Amino acid sequence: MNAVAYERAPSWSVSQWMNARDDITLESLRGSVVALHAFQMLCPGCVSHGIPQAKAIHAAFPPDKVRVIGLHSVFEHHEAMGPVALAAFLSEYRLGFPVAVDQPAAQGPIPLTMQAYGMQGTPTLVLIDKTGHIRLHHFGQLDDLRVGAVIGQLLTEPFG
Amino acid sequence: MNAVAYERAPSWSVSQWMNARDDITLESLRGSVVALHAFQMLCPGCVSHGIPQAKAIHAAFPPDKVRVIGLHSVFEHHEAMGPVALAAFLSEYRLGFPVAVDQPAAQGPIPLTMQAYGMQGTPTLVLIDKTGHIRLHHFGQLDDLRVGAVIGQLLTEPFG
Amino acid sequence: MNAVAYERAPSWSVSQWMNARDDITLESLRGSVVALHAFQMLCPGCVSHGIPQAKAIHAAFPPDKVRVIGLHSVFEHHEAMGPVALAAFLSEYRLGFPVAVDQPAAQGPIPLTMQAYGMQGTPTLVLIDKTGHIRLHHFGQLDDLRVGAVIGQLLTEPFG
Amino acid sequence: MNAVAYERAPSWSVSQWMNARDDITLESLRGSVVALHAFQMLCPGCVSHGIPQAKAIHAAFPPDKVRVIGLHSVFEHHEAMGPVALAAFLSEYRLGFPVAVDQPAAQGPIPLTMQAYGMQGTPTLVLIDKTGHIRLHHFGQLDDLRVGAVIGQLLTEPFG
Repeated sequence: MNAVAYERAPSWSVSQWMNARDDITLESLRGSVVALHAFQMLCPGCVSHGIPQAKAIHAAFPPDKVRVIGLHSVFEHHEAMGPVALAAFLSEYRLGFPVAVDQPAAQGPIPLTMQAYGMQGTPTLVLIDKTGHIRLHHFGQLDDLRVGAVIGQLLTEPFG
Repeated sequence: MNAVAYERAPSWSVSQWMNARDDITLESLRGSVVALHAFQMLCPGCVSHGIPQAKAIHAAFPPDKVRVIGLHSVFEHHEAMGPVALAAFLSEYRLGFPVAVDQPAAQGPIPLTMQAYGMQGTPTLVLIDKTGHIRLHHFGQLDDLRVGAVIGQLLTEPFG
Repeated sequence: MNAVAYERAPSWSVSQWMNARDDITLESLRGSVVALHAFQMLCPGCVSHGIPQAKAIHAAFPPDKVRVIGLHSVFEHHEAMGPVALAAFLSEYRLGFPVAVDQPAAQGPIPLTMQAYGMQGTPTLVLIDKTGHIRLHHFGQLDDLRVGAVIGQLLTEPFG
Repeated sequence: MNAVAYERAPSWSVSQWMNARDDITLESLRGSVVALHAFQMLCPGCVSHGIPQAKAIHAAFPPDKVRVIGLHSVFEHHEAMGPVALAAFLSEYRLGFPVAVDQPAAQGPIPLTMQAYGMQGTPTLVLIDKTGHIRLHHFGQLDDLRVGAVIGQLLTEPFG
């Protein structure tokens, strides 16, 4: 492995954090594997598959080793998925990990972090290694075995 | 069976209909079995169980024999589940049957139809016979076999 | 409904009963709805769908109203699915209802009851009404709502 | 990691191989991660969970990197799970990976490989690293994320 071969994960543009005492920068997570789970609260595939997988990752690994971060990247039905609605959703679905509201763009429906990562839709899972590089970027459903295998590999990599 | 033994289903108080050309009164459905499915769009049990069951009922029986009616009975997180959000939800989850927005009460969080039926929460399934009487009233999850059995029985009953 | 329109269910040819103190004839079940579930213990669709459905029917209805009868109709891999293997299977999978071993034919792989009912394979569900007539005959997977609806209808029919 | 800390995986005692052209020794698999899946064909937890997981591992990873080996470790109902029955089972359930029949013991119900590994029952999953050491030994159900993570870690380890 040669880390320089992997794309550096862009910084996050966040209008609001939920389930978090303070803002969380990607930079502050160096040394941990980061599972960035982009979703929309009214996206059926996110609710049936993506969010349960993010919760499972959160449950399966020590929180200092694997950091699960939700990213609410609203690109449709904006009026139905504002922060108040999201707060109700997080409470009802009992998401225990921090969730960032992806910063809306000045123009167009696609929020800024979604743009920076070139995401095609939701759910999208991005796995970022300890040094801040993107190692998996998947739109849609990806089975737990494959996701687990990448996480397991990234956990073995040295840091610092 | 003696129909007078069963409670007459109360009329519906509806602030808005979706997926319907015109308002639908319970009275206009006499002669059909009615499956009234009360839900909230952000209620996890509704999304994982109640709504799929309502869709399955809609798919399994001829629409003139069994009428499936959704009832959006919001009693919590009102600000997150208004009509605009509900319209987005119906579109995303592809609900094909009419959905009534339960009329909010002048006071208190429980909407009027939910009050009139004495519902304890969501999801609630109410099966109403051809003459407008309540034959099943279930809060929570009820397996398809038992639901099907009641529908099958009600379908055999004479009308008119 | 005119009962003469329905085919009379053939008698069962049984080489051995399991989970039953005495032999059970179809005739002795008059007055009950009978759910005859034909299966093979090594048929994946039977194990994943048919048997769970038969167990669910057994659990959902009073045993004197709906009698669930398993029928082990072996038409392939005969050497792997003899009575000793079946007994182990019934114990492991905790089938609580009576199971009849379908009588092997003198010639050919298809056992006698399977032949008499014209079954195409396993799993097959046959619903027989209180007067001994076939009201549903389904090869493969049939959803619980539809199965429940037929059972519910048959339960309402008069007997005697 | 210090490989000497891990128990060396015992050799397999096999009375018969299925789905394999030749006998397969554990030693011959050095350099690959080995997923040894011990099951009984009439064990419900094996059929519902263990075997699907083994098939998923077989599908998710390149066969030269991760070798999936089934081990039919019969310790009960021996008369129902002989080689003829197993062959029917493998055909019906479409297991595509090699399956070893665990060598019955001269005395007692527990076959030899099951004894050597100290397995408590079925299903049991054993993950063996490239150098032949046991890295995971789990009786019962273990979620795909955790299994995947161990496999992912083992894949990164050097060999030779």
